[in-house]
Amino acid sequence: MSTSVFDSTLHRDLFGDGEIARLLSDSAEVRAMMLVLGALAKAQGQAGIIPEISGQFLHRATMEIQIDPTGLAGMNGVVVPGLVAAMRTALEAPEHAQYLHWGATSQDIQDTAQSLRLRQVLALMEARLREVLTALTDLAESHAETPQAARTYGQVAVPSSFGALVASWGWPILRLLERLPDLRRHALCVSLSGAAGTASQLAPDPAALRAALAEGLGLSDPQRSWHADRSGIIEIAQWLASVTTTMGKLGEDVLRLSRSDVGEVQLGAAGASSTMPQKQNPVAASALVALARVAPAQAGVLSLPHGEARDGAAWFTEWLTLPPLVSASARSSALAVDVVRSVTPKAEAMAARLNDPLGLIHAEALSFALTATLRRPDAQAEVKRLTKEAIASCRSLPELVAEAHPDAPLPPLSGADALGQAPREARDFVTKAREFLSDA
Amino acid sequence: MSTSVFDSTLHRDLFGDGEIARLLSDSAEVRAMMLVLGALAKAQGQAGIIPEISGQFLHRATMEIQIDPTGLAGMNGVVVPGLVAAMRTALEAPEHAQYLHWGATSQDIQDTAQSLRLRQVLALMEARLREVLTALTDLAESHAETPQAARTYGQVAVPSSFGALVASWGWPILRLLERLPDLRRHALCVSLSGAAGTASQLAPDPAALRAALAEGLGLSDPQRSWHADRSGIIEIAQWLASVTTTMGKLGEDVLRLSRSDVGEVQLGAAGASSTMPQKQNPVAASALVALARVAPAQAGVLSLPHGEARDGAAWFTEWLTLPPLVSASARSSALAVDVVRSVTPKAEAMAARLNDPLGLIHAEALSFALTATLRRPDAQAEVKRLTKEAIASCRSLPELVAEAHPDAPLPPLSGADALGQAPREARDFVTKAREFLSDA
Amino acid sequence: MSTSVFDSTLHRDLFGDGEIARLLSDSAEVRAMMLVLGALAKAQGQAGIIPEISGQFLHRATMEIQIDPTGLAGMNGVVVPGLVAAMRTALEAPEHAQYLHWGATSQDIQDTAQSLRLRQVLALMEARLREVLTALTDLAESHAETPQAARTYGQVAVPSSFGALVASWGWPILRLLERLPDLRRHALCVSLSGAAGTASQLAPDPAALRAALAEGLGLSDPQRSWHADRSGIIEIAQWLASVTTTMGKLGEDVLRLSRSDVGEVQLGAAGASSTMPQKQNPVAASALVALARVAPAQAGVLSLPHGEARDGAAWFTEWLTLPPLVSASARSSALAVDVVRSVTPKAEAMAARLNDPLGLIHAEALSFALTATLRRPDAQAEVKRLTKEAIASCRSLPELVAEAHPDAPLPPLSGADALGQAPREARDFVTKAREFLSDA
Amino acid sequence: MSTSVFDSTLHRDLFGDGEIARLLSDSAEVRAMMLVLGALAKAQGQAGIIPEISGQFLHRATMEIQIDPTGLAGMNGVVVPGLVAAMRTALEAPEHAQYLHWGATSQDIQDTAQSLRLRQVLALMEARLREVLTALTDLAESHAETPQAARTYGQVAVPSSFGALVASWGWPILRLLERLPDLRRHALCVSLSGAAGTASQLAPDPAALRAALAEGLGLSDPQRSWHADRSGIIEIAQWLASVTTTMGKLGEDVLRLSRSDVGEVQLGAAGASSTMPQKQNPVAASALVALARVAPAQAGVLSLPHGEARDGAAWFTEWLTLPPLVSASARSSALAVDVVRSVTPKAEAMAARLNDPLGLIHAEALSFALTATLRRPDAQAEVKRLTKEAIASCRSLPELVAEAHPDAPLPPLSGADALGQAPREARDFVTKAREFLSDA
Repeated sequence: MSTSVFDSTLHRDLFGDGEIARLLSDSAEVRAMMLVLGALAKAQGQAGIIPEISGQFLHRATMEIQIDPTGLAGMNGVVVPGLVAAMRTALEAPEHAQYLHWGATSQDIQDTAQSLRLRQVLALMEARLREVLTALTDLAESHAETPQAARTYGQVAVPSSFGALVASWGWPILRLLERLPDLRRHALCVSLSGAAGTASQLAPDPAALRAALAEGLGLSDPQRSWHADRSGIIEIAQWLASVTTTMGKLGEDVLRLSRSDVGEVQLGAAGASSTMPQKQNPVAASALVALARVAPAQAGVLSLPHGEARDGAAWFTEWLTLPPLVSASARSSALAVDVVRSVTPKAEAMAARLNDPLGLIHAEALSFALTATLRRPDAQAEVKRLTKEAIASCRSLPELVAEAHPDAPLPPLSGADALGQAPREARDFVTKAREFLSDA
Repeated sequence: MSTSVFDSTLHRDLFGDGEIARLLSDSAEVRAMMLVLGALAKAQGQAGIIPEISGQFLHRATMEIQIDPTGLAGMNGVVVPGLVAAMRTALEAPEHAQYLHWGATSQDIQDTAQSLRLRQVLALMEARLREVLTALTDLAESHAETPQAARTYGQVAVPSSFGALVASWGWPILRLLERLPDLRRHALCVSLSGAAGTASQLAPDPAALRAALAEGLGLSDPQRSWHADRSGIIEIAQWLASVTTTMGKLGEDVLRLSRSDVGEVQLGAAGASSTMPQKQNPVAASALVALARVAPAQAGVLSLPHGEARDGAAWFTEWLTLPPLVSASARSSALAVDVVRSVTPKAEAMAARLNDPLGLIHAEALSFALTATLRRPDAQAEVKRLTKEAIASCRSLPELVAEAHPDAPLPPLSGADALGQAPREARDFVTKAREFLSDA
Repeated sequence: MSTSVFDSTLHRDLFGDGEIARLLSDSAEVRAMMLVLGALAKAQGQAGIIPEISGQFLHRATMEIQIDPTGLAGMNGVVVPGLVAAMRTALEAPEHAQYLHWGATSQDIQDTAQSLRLRQVLALMEARLREVLTALTDLAESHAETPQAARTYGQVAVPSSFGALVASWGWPILRLLERLPDLRRHALCVSLSGAAGTASQLAPDPAALRAALAEGLGLSDPQRSWHADRSGIIEIAQWLASVTTTMGKLGEDVLRLSRSDVGEVQLGAAGASSTMPQKQNPVAASALVALARVAPAQAGVLSLPHGEARDGAAWFTEWLTLPPLVSASARSSALAVDVVRSVTPKAEAMAARLNDPLGLIHAEALSFALTATLRRPDAQAEVKRLTKEAIASCRSLPELVAEAHPDAPLPPLSGADALGQAPREARDFVTKAREFLSDA
Repeated sequence: MSTSVFDSTLHRDLFGDGEIARLLSDSAEVRAMMLVLGALAKAQGQAGIIPEISGQFLHRATMEIQIDPTGLAGMNGVVVPGLVAAMRTALEAPEHAQYLHWGATSQDIQDTAQSLRLRQVLALMEARLREVLTALTDLAESHAETPQAARTYGQVAVPSSFGALVASWGWPILRLLERLPDLRRHALCVSLSGAAGTASQLAPDPAALRAALAEGLGLSDPQRSWHADRSGIIEIAQWLASVTTTMGKLGEDVLRLSRSDVGEVQLGAAGASSTMPQKQNPVAASALVALARVAPAQAGVLSLPHGEARDGAAWFTEWLTLPPLVSASARSSALAVDVVRSVTPKAEAMAARLNDPLGLIHAEALSFALTATLRRPDAQAEVKRLTKEAIASCRSLPELVAEAHPDAPLPPLSGADALGQAPREARDFVTKAREFLSDA
C-alpha cells in the first residue's frame, strides 16, 4: 500500500511508467508553466501590450532559468503566484519581470501548461496504440486460420479462429486512433481569458492575443473562455478511459485463455509464485483488467459540473482524477504492448478443444445442415435430442446425426471451412489496420 | 422511493419524459426486434439464402402482426427465442416461419434493434439540444451587455455580463452537436455475426448480407462482429453523460444565482414550498445537477470490459446502465429547455452587486491602471493596501486610489467598457451558434 | 432496452422481483406517507398540539381512505403538498383535515415514509440472506471433503475442497447479517424537524413529539434533524451494495466453474441458447456479476454531500440512486438463492483436475516435504527443476521427486489429508453459521 | 498535473499529509512486511513448526536489518518473494533464513502488513475526527443562539442558529467514531492461510498458529481465510469514504456561507488571488468538496468482487484504489480541522439577513399564528396573499399581518425564542458529543 502504485518503487515493474512519470513530475509542471509565461510575454511584446524588449527578454529567460519546485507551494492551492514571484526574483531584472503573467489568471497559465503536457501524453499514447495495433495485425494474420473454439457466456460455442479473436482486440484501437485528430483539435487549447473569463486586462484585443499565443505554442485557439467549461478535458478523460476498456478486453481474454483449465495461450516469463513452483501468474493481464476498472470511474468523477466563472471544488476534482487517469491509461497501453508481444497461442490445445470426441461444438452447424430435409424448428429439436443422446452415450454428435439422417449433407467439421467467417474477420482487420498504419 | 423516478407517476412532472418512455417501452423493444427480423428475412430472401417468397412474407408480416410482450420473458434472460417462437405461432405459416431468425444469434437481433432505438434517441436529443441552443443564443444576445459580477470560488471577482455566462452554457452544447454525425456513423451499426461472431450459418457471403441489412435499416455496416466490442455503445454513453454534465453546469449556475442571497435570476412558477409561503424552490435546476451526478457514473460502469466472444455479465451490465443513462440524459435536455425558457435575469440585482459602494470588484482594473506609474508588483501591493483601507474605513476603493494617485488614468468603472471582453464572448457565441443552427 | 430492467416484463424472469416492486410502487409510497401523516396527527393529538379528537380522526382516516397516486405529481418535485391537499378533500372534514401535516415539512413525511419502507426492505433482505446462508451451510457441510483444485490467478494452485469454497461465499453473508441490528437502530429513523430543521411550529416540545412518533411507528428516534445528514441512508446504501459484492463473488465463481473448459459445477435448467442446442448459459450467475458492478457505483453517487439545511440537488440524487440500488441488491439476494439451490458440484470433474497425471498441483507440498533433507530455498529450487522435467518428459512430478529423493517423506497426495485445512474451513463455517442462524 | 497531488511538492500545502505519506511509503510497506515475517517466525518457533531458535533469531533480526525497497520490485507484481530473498541474503544465516516465510503465501504477508498499517491509519483518523468534533462542540456551544437564516434549496427558509448548523456537521462524525471499535474488530485481521486458503504447509494446527500470530501482532483472528473475501477492507473503504462525505458537507456549507453574496463566515489567511487583490478564495473548503467527490467512487470500484481463491485483477484493483482513498480521507480530516478552526461566524451579517425589512422569513411562523383564528389552509392562503402584498409594496410582512389580523397572537420575531429548536439542536449535540469524547 503506497500512496500511488504508479510512483512506488515496489510496484515499479508492474505499474511504473517512466515516460509518463516524467511528463507528470513537478518539475515538468513548472517547466510547462514557465514556457507558457514566456510565450505569453513574447506575444504581448509583439502586440505592443508590454514593451517588446521585455517580451523578448522574458521569452528567452523562461527557457533558461531554473526554478526549484520545492519552494512554490502555497496554501492558496495554486502554484502560479509563487512561481511568478520566484521567477521575478530569479530574473534579476525588475523592469522586465513586472510584465510576467501580465493580465492573465493563474488558471490560464495552469490550463495552457496542462494542454502542453496532454499533447505529449496523447503523442505517447498514440505511439503505443500503434505499437499494439501493429503487433495485433501480425498476430491476427498469422493465426487467421488457427482453429479455436469461440466461447459465449464461458461456454464453448462454435468453431472460430484465434486470429478472429485478435481482430476483436484490434478494432476498437483503430477507432481510438481515428478519433485522435478531432480530439486534439478540440481539446488541446490555450486558455487566455483573465481573472474570470472577461480577459479585462490582457490586451486591447484579447482574441488576437489568444490566437497569437495558440500559434506560438502550437495549440488550438478555443475562441472563448473555458475556465469552467471542461468539455475538452472530459473528452480526453473519456478517451483515456476507453483505452483502458479496450486493453481490459484483451487482458480479460488472456486471463481466461491462460487458465490452467484452458491453456490456449502461454505468457512470457513474469508471474512466478512465491510458494508454488509450478505456477505462473498472468500478472500483466490481471493489471490490464484492474486498470480498466479504475479509469472509467475516474472519468465519471471528473465529469461533475463546474459552477460560475471558476470553481475551486470542481477544478480540484480534476487535479485529483486526471493525473491518475493519465497514469492508468498510459500504463494500460504499455502493458498491452508487453502482453501482445509475449502471448503465444497454443494451437494444439486450441485444436484439442475443438476436436472434443463428442463434437458438440458442431451442433449449430449440424442443425442447419438438417434444414435441407427438415424445417428449422424441427431441425433444432432433432439436434437437441441427439445432443442429449451423445452426452448420455458418450458418442460423437456428428456420427449420431449422420446415422439418423444419412441423406443430410454434413457440414465441414474441420479445416478452415469449418471456421465460418472467422478467417475473414481476421483478414479484414489486418487489411484495414495496415491501411490505417501506413497512412499516417 | 419508486423503482425508477423516470417511470413513477408521482415524479412524472419532474422526471417523467413521455417521448423517451415510449422509446424505451417493452412494446417498442419488441417492435424494433420484429423490424430487424423482418429486414433480415428480406435481405436473406433477396440473397437467395432463404426462399425469396419467405423473405418477402416475413418482412411484410413482421410489420403487421402484434406480439404481446407479456408472454416473452424466459429465464435465459434473452427475449429473442421467446419472441421468435411467438412470432412463428402468430404467423400461422410454418413453411415461411421456419426461416425467421435464420442463422443469426439473439444478440444480433437485440443489438440491431437497440441501434434502431438509439438512432431515435439521438434524433430526439439533437432536437432538444438545438432547442436549448437556440434559446441560449437569444438570451446571450439580449444580455450581451447586461452587467453582472463574475464569481470565482463563489467570490465576486470582476465585472462581466450575463450574456457571457449564457455563452459559457452554450459552447459545450455546440460541441455535443458537432460530434453527432461521427458518433452516428461509428456507433449506430447493425450487428450480424451469428452465434459467436463467425457468422457461420448466416449466408455464403455474410459480409454482403450484413451490408444489405445495414442498407435496409439505414444503419451503419460495422464491417466486423461487435458482440463483445462495445466501443460504439460506450461512445454513445459518454456522449449522453456529457449532455448531463453540460446541462448540470447550467443548473448549478441557476441554483447559485437564484439563491435568496443573490437573487440575480428568477425562475418560473414551479417549486412552491409546502409550509413556507414565501419560498419558491429551484427544483428543475436542482434536478439538472442531480442528473449530472448520476449519469457519468453509469457510463463508467457500462465501460467495464467484456470477455471472449460474448459475455453475459458485461452485457447485462449494459442492460442495467444504458436505459437509465438514456432517461437521465434525455430528461436533462428537456429540463434544460424548461429552465432556459423560464429563467429571467434581474438586471437591477446584478447591477446592484456591481455597484457595491466599496467598489472592490474594480480592484484588478485599478491595479493595472496604476502600472502607468508603478511597476506591476508595486501596483498590486498598493491596491492591496488601499483595499484594506477601503474595507476598514467603509470608503470607495476607486476614490481612495484616485486620491492617492491623482495622475493615474482611472479605468472605466461602469458601462459596457467596464465589462472587458464579456460582451464579445456573448456575441462570438451567438454568431457561431447561429451559423451552426442555420447550417443543418 | 427498457427504462428499467427491474420493471420490464421482458426481463421479468431475470431481473423482476415482485416483492420489491410492490415495496417500491407509487401506491406503497403514498400509503407509507399517509401512515406517517396519521401517526403524526395521533401523536400531536395526544400531546395536545392539535385537538385530540382530530388526531384520532386523522389517524383512523389515513388508514381507510384511498388516494390515487396518479393525480399527485406537481412540478415542485415533492408529492406531499399534493397528497395533503388530496387527503383534505377526501376526508370531507375540514375541521379535522386542517390539522393534517401540522408543522412538519414535506421532507419529514417523505423521509419517515422512506424509513418505513426501508425497514421492510431490510426485513426482506434479511430473510433472503438467511435463506442463502442456510443453503450454503448445507452445501459446505456436504462437500467439506469433496476434493477440488483451488485456483489463484486462474491457475490451478493446491488441492482444496468445494466445501471450503462454499464457506468463502458464506462468511461475508454472516457479517452482513451481523451488522443488521446496529444498522437498523442507526438508520431507520423518523424525521421530524420542520421546514429547516428547527421544528419551529411542530410542538412546544418537538423532541418529545419526535420520540412519540418514533414510538408510534416503531422507528428509531434520531434525537436530531437529519434532513441534510444522510449518513444513515448512506450506511444502508453501502450495506445494500455490499450484498451485491458478496453475491457477485458467488456468481463470478459459478461463472468460472461452469465454463465448458472447467465443468466443475452444473446449473439448473435456465439459459438455453437460441441457436446452439448444446449450450446452457449461466445467466443467473452472469446477472449476479452484473448487479455487483452496478450497485457500488450507485452507492458512491448517493454519498455526494448535501448543503445547508435541505438540498434539492442532493436529495434528488438520492431519489435517482436509492431505488435502483434497492432493486439491484434485492434481486441479487433472490438470484443467489436460486443459484445456490440449483448448483450441482461435479465431484468427478473436480477429482479429475486434481488427479492430473503430471501431479503438478502437489508441487508446493512436495517442496515442503523435501525440507526434511534440504534447506527451504534448495527444496524449492529442486522442485522447480523437477517440475520442468515433469512437463518436458510428461512424467508425474511426485514420482520424479520420489525417485530423486528416496528418503524424503512424501506428503499425502490424495484423500482428505491432501486437502490441508480446506475441510476444516468448510466445517468451521458450518458451525459458526448454524450457531448464528439458530440464535435469532 | 502531478502523478498524485498527495505526493506533489507543488500541492503540498493543500493536499500533502506528512503523517499519511509516511504510513504509505515504500519503506513503511517493507518494514510492516518484515514485522509480519518476524512475528510469523516467532509464532512458528514457539509452536515447534520451525526450530525455536530460528524463530527467535528471525523475529529479532527482522526488527534490525534494513532492506532497501529499491531493489525489490519484480515483474510478478508481488514484492514478497523479492523481499524474502533480500532478507535471506542480508541475514547471513542460511540455517535460520530458510525458515523465513515458512508455508505462508505472499498475500498472507502483504495483507497482514496492510492490516498493521490500516490500524495506524484508523488511529490517526480517530484522533483527527476527535479533534474536529471537539472544535465543533465548542463552536456549537458558543453559537447555539447566534441567529442565522436556515436555507433550503438555497432559499432563505426560517430563522435558525449557527450552532444548529454546526451541530449538523458534528452528528455524522459522532457516528463515524461510534462505528470504529466494531470496524477494527472485524476488519483489522491477520491473514494466514497459505497458497490458496488451505494453509496446507503452515503448521499441523494452522488455526492455532493464526491465533498466535494475531495475538503477537495485536490484530484480530479472522478464523478463516479471507484472500478473496474483502468484506473487511470494503467496510474500511466505505468508512473512509464516509469521512470525506461528512467533511464534504462542512466544506460545502462553508463555500456557500463564504460567498461574497452571503458573507456569513470568514475564513483564515489562505487563498489569496494572483490577480485580484480583494479576493480570498475558500480553497480548503473547496478541497473538502473535491475529496468528497473522489473518495466514494473509489470505494465503489474497490468493491468489485474477486474470483476463486485469489484473484490478481481484483487484488490489483484494491492496490490502485485503497491508497488514494486513505490519502483522500486522511487529508479530508486534516483539512476539516483547519477549516473548523479558522472559520469565524459573522453574527452581524447573519442577523442582517434575518432582519430583512420585508420579514418574509417569518412567513411560516405567521401562518401558524393565524391558525388561532383561521383554519390552517386558510391561514396559509392568507399569509401567501400578504406575502405577495409585502413584496409588491415593499412593506414588512409581520406588520401587514398584524394590521389585517389585529387579534391574532403574533409569534416572537427576534431573540432566541424566534429560533425554534435550533438552540436546543446545538446544545443536544454538545452534550452528546462531550459525553462521547470524555468516555474514551
